[in-house]
Amino acid sequence: MTKSLLVLVLAATASLAADPLPSWNDTPRKTAIIAFVEKVTKSGSPDFVPVPERIAVFDNDGTLWSEAPVPTQLFYAFSELKRRAPAEPELAADPMVKAALTGNVEALKANQMAGLIRIVELTHSNMPADTFRSRVQAWTKTFEHPRFKGGLAGTTYQPMQELLSYLRANSFKTFIVSGGGEDFMRAFTEVLYGIPPEQVVGSSGEVKYAMTDGKPVLTKVSGHIFVDDKQGKPVGIYRQIGRRPIFCAGNSDGDQAMLEYTTIGNPRPSFGLIVHHTDAGREYAYDAKPPASGTLITAMKAAPKHGWRLVDMKNDWKTVFPPK
Amino acid sequence: MTKSLLVLVLAATASLAADPLPSWNDTPRKTAIIAFVEKVTKSGSPDFVPVPERIAVFDNDGTLWSEAPVPTQLFYAFSELKRRAPAEPELAADPMVKAALTGNVEALKANQMAGLIRIVELTHSNMPADTFRSRVQAWTKTFEHPRFKGGLAGTTYQPMQELLSYLRANSFKTFIVSGGGEDFMRAFTEVLYGIPPEQVVGSSGEVKYAMTDGKPVLTKVSGHIFVDDKQGKPVGIYRQIGRRPIFCAGNSDGDQAMLEYTTIGNPRPSFGLIVHHTDAGREYAYDAKPPASGTLITAMKAAPKHGWRLVDMKNDWKTVFPPK
Repeated sequence: MTKSLLVLVLAATASLAADPLPSWNDTPRKTAIIAFVEKVTKSGSPDFVPVPERIAVFDNDGTLWSEAPVPTQLFYAFSELKRRAPAEPELAADPMVKAALTGNVEALKANQMAGLIRIVELTHSNMPADTFRSRVQAWTKTFEHPRFKGGLAGTTYQPMQELLSYLRANSFKTFIVSGGGEDFMRAFTEVLYGIPPEQVVGSSGEVKYAMTDGKPVLTKVSGHIFVDDKQGKPVGIYRQIGRRPIFCAGNSDGDQAMLEYTTIGNPRPSFGLIVHHTDAGREYAYDAKPPASGTLITAMKAAPKHGWRLVDMKNDWKTVFPPK
Repeated sequence: MTKSLLVLVLAATASLAADPLPSWNDTPRKTAIIAFVEKVTKSGSPDFVPVPERIAVFDNDGTLWSEAPVPTQLFYAFSELKRRAPAEPELAADPMVKAALTGNVEALKANQMAGLIRIVELTHSNMPADTFRSRVQAWTKTFEHPRFKGGLAGTTYQPMQELLSYLRANSFKTFIVSGGGEDFMRAFTEVLYGIPPEQVVGSSGEVKYAMTDGKPVLTKVSGHIFVDDKQGKPVGIYRQIGRRPIFCAGNSDGDQAMLEYTTIGNPRPSFGLIVHHTDAGREYAYDAKPPASGTLITAMKAAPKHGWRLVDMKNDWKTVFPPK
């Protein structure tokens, strides 16, 4: 390495070290995140947290990627119905499928979301787990958001991607803890976020194991559904991680229980973060009303008391989406 | 570092590299394990497996530690009843508790194990999850096996501890997948095996989350129990790991389904191992009959067809337990 190249590399390294979150503006939220990470990783400090306990949990919809105009998993369900309907007359004849294919979202939402539940069941159950994963993975290669470019990755938040990387660079283990489908997310989170399937906790249905024609097959079946939302989130964390996180990020009241579980009475230092969608120009502006897929009311009210940091998307983020 | 010290260190390193499994005799089982690990980690080889897919799953009772005369979790249950009975007259009056405290195992096993299920429920449910963990951790410091010395660690198999370390040194992620209680095992697996709670899959009951007196509390409640045994093992692997293992070790028919799932039709190279208890002198000799906590009959019969390696404890292991 020549001397001038070495200088360049050192400069780049120093710059990285100086700013691990380049897409964040220098507001108190960014300062607080960095101060937290520095104190829990400083050996000898009373706030030091041993590596195995550096567990960080992130909601997905509205926290790591856009959830508007509808959560992306619904785009998958609609796309599957459209793909399958021509060859499956019985499926096409289902009133809820008809409503979905004609974009009649009101019909789907009638009767307490029964229509939406029905189309999720039709597209997510009663098939081998491998088939489901292959279908989701094929879809990820074709998906385009109605408003944002760059496929699936183009709907993820660049500042949050940097936050995931920054935490991992400081030996945090990053988990997704989402109300979204566990099997759905696991089909792509490793590519999209660098988060392997075993670090994804989500809502999940039942699977059955059997040897079929001499091959082991896991089949997704209808049955009990674990809903990884609200009080279900600390339960999902306990069941799949088995220890208390020290960092938690969410964006709605559905994340309030896991924010409490992470930050209240935790013997370790902890950090709670809420992404507040304040940016109608670059993304969306919402909290209590649609296109929120879950409201942000009670968690926002509780935030000051518990020290949860409210990220103001419009002012705290230099850019929202990854560079194209 | 002086030159002679350097020589010593290099010699020690070379010796480690030459024999990663020093407690294993040089039989075909040891050779096969090493050949497998070398081929899947050799970059450029057609058998190379990328690091994230190097998932290894281990049964616990009878595979990583002794399960005789009874599984260790039962020793915990008995110990808890004994500790609590003096201060809890209602508990002490339970006929099954009386049977447990007087060592009347036959009474406990009558009525299809209902007695054992009852005492596990009494000692594992209806308390905060933190209380349960603290109690288990306190017990681990006092436990002594009726036959083997060295506390809890003294009942683990040294050759299997070396196998866990060897796999991890080759960037495998090691998981426990056991019929034992998930919460019970997670209280000590990090210390005992270097396996963190999030890599422990076991049988599990329900937990409920609530804010109580301003504090988040997870409570273990009676309710549906997921049994992580037999066909439940591939289900537990799918639910908590989300991908197929390439290495699987067990010791009973309860592990057959996860051996199948790991090795049959896996697009990646894979390895199945069964610990056969053949050593009445140093440990126990059993397969089809007690003190087996699960029989080893069908899996042993299926082993040659699927290439599962049967470890002959008496002849394959130089030592059984860790040095005292």
